Amino acid sequence: MADPAPTSPAADRAARVALTWLAEPGNQSVWSLVEKYGAPETLARFLRGEAPTAAQRAAVQAKAEDLAPRRLMELTVERAERLGARIVVPSDEEWPRRVESLATLELDGTGRIIENVRPPLCFWVRGPWPLGETLERSVAVVGARAATPYGLHVTHEISYGLAEHGWTVVSGGAFGIDAAAHRAAMAAGGRTVAVLAGGVDRPYPAGNTAMFERIAETGLLISEWPPGAEPMRHRFLVRNRVIAAATVGTVVVEAAARSGAAQTMSRVLALNRTAMVVPGPVTSAVSVGCHEMLRERPETILVTGPAHVLEAVGQAGEYLVDPPRGPARRRDSLDEESALVLEAVPARGTATPEELAAKAGLELRTVLRRLSLLEVAGFIERRATGVALLSRSDFPA
Amino acid sequence: MADPAPTSPAADRAARVALTWLAEPGNQSVWSLVEKYGAPETLARFLRGEAPTAAQRAAVQAKAEDLAPRRLMELTVERAERLGARIVVPSDEEWPRRVESLATLELDGTGRIIENVRPPLCFWVRGPWPLGETLERSVAVVGARAATPYGLHVTHEISYGLAEHGWTVVSGGAFGIDAAAHRAAMAAGGRTVAVLAGGVDRPYPAGNTAMFERIAETGLLISEWPPGAEPMRHRFLVRNRVIAAATVGTVVVEAAARSGAAQTMSRVLALNRTAMVVPGPVTSAVSVGCHEMLRERPETILVTGPAHVLEAVGQAGEYLVDPPRGPARRRDSLDEESALVLEAVPARGTATPEELAAKAGLELRTVLRRLSLLEVAGFIERRATGVALLSRSDFPA
Repeated sequence: MADPAPTSPAADRAARVALTWLAEPGNQSVWSLVEKYGAPETLARFLRGEAPTAAQRAAVQAKAEDLAPRRLMELTVERAERLGARIVVPSDEEWPRRVESLATLELDGTGRIIENVRPPLCFWVRGPWPLGETLERSVAVVGARAATPYGLHVTHEISYGLAEHGWTVVSGGAFGIDAAAHRAAMAAGGRTVAVLAGGVDRPYPAGNTAMFERIAETGLLISEWPPGAEPMRHRFLVRNRVIAAATVGTVVVEAAARSGAAQTMSRVLALNRTAMVVPGPVTSAVSVGCHEMLRERPETILVTGPAHVLEAVGQAGEYLVDPPRGPARRRDSLDEESALVLEAVPARGTATPEELAAKAGLELRTVLRRLSLLEVAGFIERRATGVALLSRSDFPA
Repeated sequence: MADPAPTSPAADRAARVALTWLAEPGNQSVWSLVEKYGAPETLARFLRGEAPTAAQRAAVQAKAEDLAPRRLMELTVERAERLGARIVVPSDEEWPRRVESLATLELDGTGRIIENVRPPLCFWVRGPWPLGETLERSVAVVGARAATPYGLHVTHEISYGLAEHGWTVVSGGAFGIDAAAHRAAMAAGGRTVAVLAGGVDRPYPAGNTAMFERIAETGLLISEWPPGAEPMRHRFLVRNRVIAAATVGTVVVEAAARSGAAQTMSRVLALNRTAMVVPGPVTSAVSVGCHEMLRERPETILVTGPAHVLEAVGQAGEYLVDPPRGPARRRDSLDEESALVLEAVPARGTATPEELAAKAGLELRTVLRRLSLLEVAGFIERRATGVALLSRSDFPA
């Protein structure tokens, strides 16, 4: 690695890592300084004792005595490499641009989270997929740890359905609804992203370790905190803003009264994302929070299954080249993979996704993903026997 | 009875009964003629063969051959008297004025109901209470016949809670949610009104006969159809408009997909009544209709128990002298019973409703009813140990 110069990408990356080590992610004043002066200059100011708050200056002094920032960066990169993790910063192609919405999120005065609402400086990432592409068509499915069999069942239905339609399922890795969401997405052969509140080397809770290992192989484990960071209580609230910002919408399946889910939903709505809530028996304590949200936030959409969720996030339309759902699009507006899939669909009759995958020379998962897009864009339709072209007169061959 | 002259109240009553016998209640053209010419003149026109539609003219001809209208009225009154039923018309003090809102209900083109949406011409009533007063503070609680134990439980909670707070529970007498609503209101010592789709002599279904007898003793059985009328299928839809119009709001507890409940809710909303829906497990077929309403009609309020219902109908405020919930009202604006109850509340400390009933010389039921009003009006508050006065400085002693 080249010696970090003040303006190089490597210096930017190193400074972001060091700043994450000196202040909690999302910190309002740190983020503002980075926006204004860049990460290396911000770090330099911190190390000169010019951090904005007395607490930050004390933290810098305490931590910088232990380890120089240059050495910290080297150690962090080494540790990440040993873990098979990578550091992703905004200049990387795989940076998930949607989290930048946090730059303008209005602070709403709900306690300490107020200080930690700004975009991440960097992510630690484990898993085989580019982060940004994976989150582009993603829905968060979250809820209570103390979930009921009812909640777990509905979570499975929604998450499986989303994955089947090529959507990434994002959640927090916790017991209960979160774990059910991740597992169902993987069961459907889809991608799932666990957004952690501590280091990617120690995903929490330890009881879900086997699941986290599977996620790291088939999806992504991501965190704003460096390896080794403890999943402290307030970090879950800081982490939740990323789940809200990185996805097209969030589904809350079960939530107790006055749970963190309501705070997450406030973020979701403030970010103009789609807020979805599954109702449940009014006699169930873990549906009380869901009913509260539906009563108190009229923008919240009641959903009962994957069809409702797909309808809601499909309307948001963020994954289409051209948002409004209109008549069939011209073929030449398609990306290469979609064009290959469309070419493979027979002129008459239907073909199964497996047949299309073989004919197009693409993986089944890719074909399923592209079929959803082609369907919404009006090129194809799904019938009982398989996929069929919509009238060719609608677009030039 | 005096011989009915064309302009007398007795002639009006007789003509309304005869017109009900000649055309279905709520009939648009009959109601318009009665508004314009009065019931006796409208009946005279019908008998002269001047009914607005060919079907009506044929019905008049067929029916008038069997029985002259004067004789019909006599027979109907005799029959009603034998049943312990009375005929209530708009000129009676106990006429429920809220049903007159149907005069301006906009027609929405949902099938044959379009012809039968106007106010009733008269009611047959069985039971000890004045109809209008009983419906003044009333909430409809309705839902599926094929209710689940969950739905029956929630219905009981809501209906019992409403009755405890002095609200009349209105429903349709059917198996399932309707019957549970009536029974819970009676169990709480409250009033309940069954709005029937056939004669009050043959409340439907026969399986609920014992319940209907109890309702006739402790509440009210009412119908727009004369004794002997069959509860035909379309009459339930015609009847539903009265349930929607006569109450401050309607709660649907369980409803299957595309059930009649959605049509009832359209009426409730069109009449500016409070539309309330209880959610349920998304896995339950009889909650599908509830979730549809909550998704498709954003004015619908999700409620999970009596507190939510009371809050919603309390806000509607129809039972207060002065609708907006403001600071404490002056004592001299109170009705006599409320003033007696308020006098009985001790200046310091608390008293139980039973103690207040003894001191005020009123029935416990009356005391409970008036306490709700006094609470909402800001005179008293309920504490763990009983009822207490709010600061006397707020109103003159």
